Amino acid sequence: MNTEKINVVKYDGDDFDHIQDTAAIENPLTIQLDGEEFATMVCTPGYLEELVIGFLGSEGIIRSVKQIESLQIDADTGFAYVKLVNKGIETKDYVSKRFIGSCCGKSRQFYFYNDAKTAKTVMSKLQMSVYQCIDLMNEMQMHSTEYRLTGGFHNAALATKDELLLCRNDIGRHNALDKIFGYCLQNRISLSDKVIVFSGRISSEIVLKVAKIGAPILLSKSAPTTLAIQLAKDLGITCVGFIRNNRLNVYTHPERIQQVH
Amino acid sequence: MNTEKINVVKYDGDDFDHIQDTAAIENPLTIQLDGEEFATMVCTPGYLEELVIGFLGSEGIIRSVKQIESLQIDADTGFAYVKLVNKGIETKDYVSKRFIGSCCGKSRQFYFYNDAKTAKTVMSKLQMSVYQCIDLMNEMQMHSTEYRLTGGFHNAALATKDELLLCRNDIGRHNALDKIFGYCLQNRISLSDKVIVFSGRISSEIVLKVAKIGAPILLSKSAPTTLAIQLAKDLGITCVGFIRNNRLNVYTHPERIQQVH
Repeated sequence: MNTEKINVVKYDGDDFDHIQDTAAIENPLTIQLDGEEFATMVCTPGYLEELVIGFLGSEGIIRSVKQIESLQIDADTGFAYVKLVNKGIETKDYVSKRFIGSCCGKSRQFYFYNDAKTAKTVMSKLQMSVYQCIDLMNEMQMHSTEYRLTGGFHNAALATKDELLLCRNDIGRHNALDKIFGYCLQNRISLSDKVIVFSGRISSEIVLKVAKIGAPILLSKSAPTTLAIQLAKDLGITCVGFIRNNRLNVYTHPERIQQVH
Repeated sequence: MNTEKINVVKYDGDDFDHIQDTAAIENPLTIQLDGEEFATMVCTPGYLEELVIGFLGSEGIIRSVKQIESLQIDADTGFAYVKLVNKGIETKDYVSKRFIGSCCGKSRQFYFYNDAKTAKTVMSKLQMSVYQCIDLMNEMQMHSTEYRLTGGFHNAALATKDELLLCRNDIGRHNALDKIFGYCLQNRISLSDKVIVFSGRISSEIVLKVAKIGAPILLSKSAPTTLAIQLAKDLGITCVGFIRNNRLNVYTHPERIQQVH
């Protein structure tokens, strides 16, 4: 379970009441990479192996699980111990180094060196209908009983245009997507015909993550930023936002979204 | 302006339509600390000086603006150049070092060394009524025309129990609070009688930030996590969540929230 009972003093418009409610569990997780502290995140318990693998993929440390020699998770203390096949590779130094765009064909919008190096343009010819977009979003929302209980989770799902394959939730928007990414890396999932469904807003970091995962279409309940739109254009990703009721907005590469089946 | 016009293919339930819409601007900002790259964030333009000062405060690098020798912002390239009075102080090394709790009186919930060292327990005897909580939240929401335009911003405000003093918005939840923190540091605001109003969820990181700012009461529209609740208990912060319509939940230190004026 990703939730815990908590005591709350509730004001219901008339009176205070002492009740029990449910809150999302949040735990720290520190990744030790080849013996060195690499990053600490706070996350929802569960699927920590996928989370760590996906996080290393997102950060440009690995492109395949073959690059991981060993991975041990100590959930009680909140530590993940990772050994890479090629220790101390140069990528680590560039993880958060600011990238200054030059005339190298990559977008001037990239801000991290590793992103400019690893995010690849998605060339997939996948197409889907507006109804499929709306159905996938509804299906993911219905799936998330924990969100309805606590209001505290972000949801991400991997899908074909017809059905959800995998749902993950986390108190962190990035973590939910990293858990999906980790699963894809672990299971060598082919991504060119897949769709990412996401409950959160579309920031530039989310678009970069979807590009690294390699999915051509991103469906969201919420709004994109200007930088997210620019990156999605450059990276060949179709961004669909504000999927609510029977409506949606297509922000980039609308050729993938059709009105009818 | 923090927003920009964008082109959207809108599906309204019947047909596709090409329209203009508004999106939140998102820019990268890299902080150079004493000549070294310290961090890159993506943020909403505006109040960048407050953002940088608040971020350095949150990270435990500074406790007062007196520790900053110079601060220059180049908004066009997205760089902030900071020189500290005491260069290369040891704190920098501990910023993201995992803290392993021992019997030192501090909560076992702290996960960063710097947090355990700098977050202080809030002792304020400030009290306010549920009506004041609800009024402040409504006032902040009404303030945010940009959110209504784009759906893309998080809002944070500094308030007394009677009125909002300062509103800041940002595409990043942390940034919105850091801009408030930066303002408080720059203007040496006394915090023991102040309230933080926030649109986002209450994670442990948000509670730590409020503790560093020094405000005794945090009002939020959304839900807290279990770790946030534990930290707020330890740090003496009153967390009020789910402030919607005429209702609210008090999660910690309810003695500060009263039913009547």
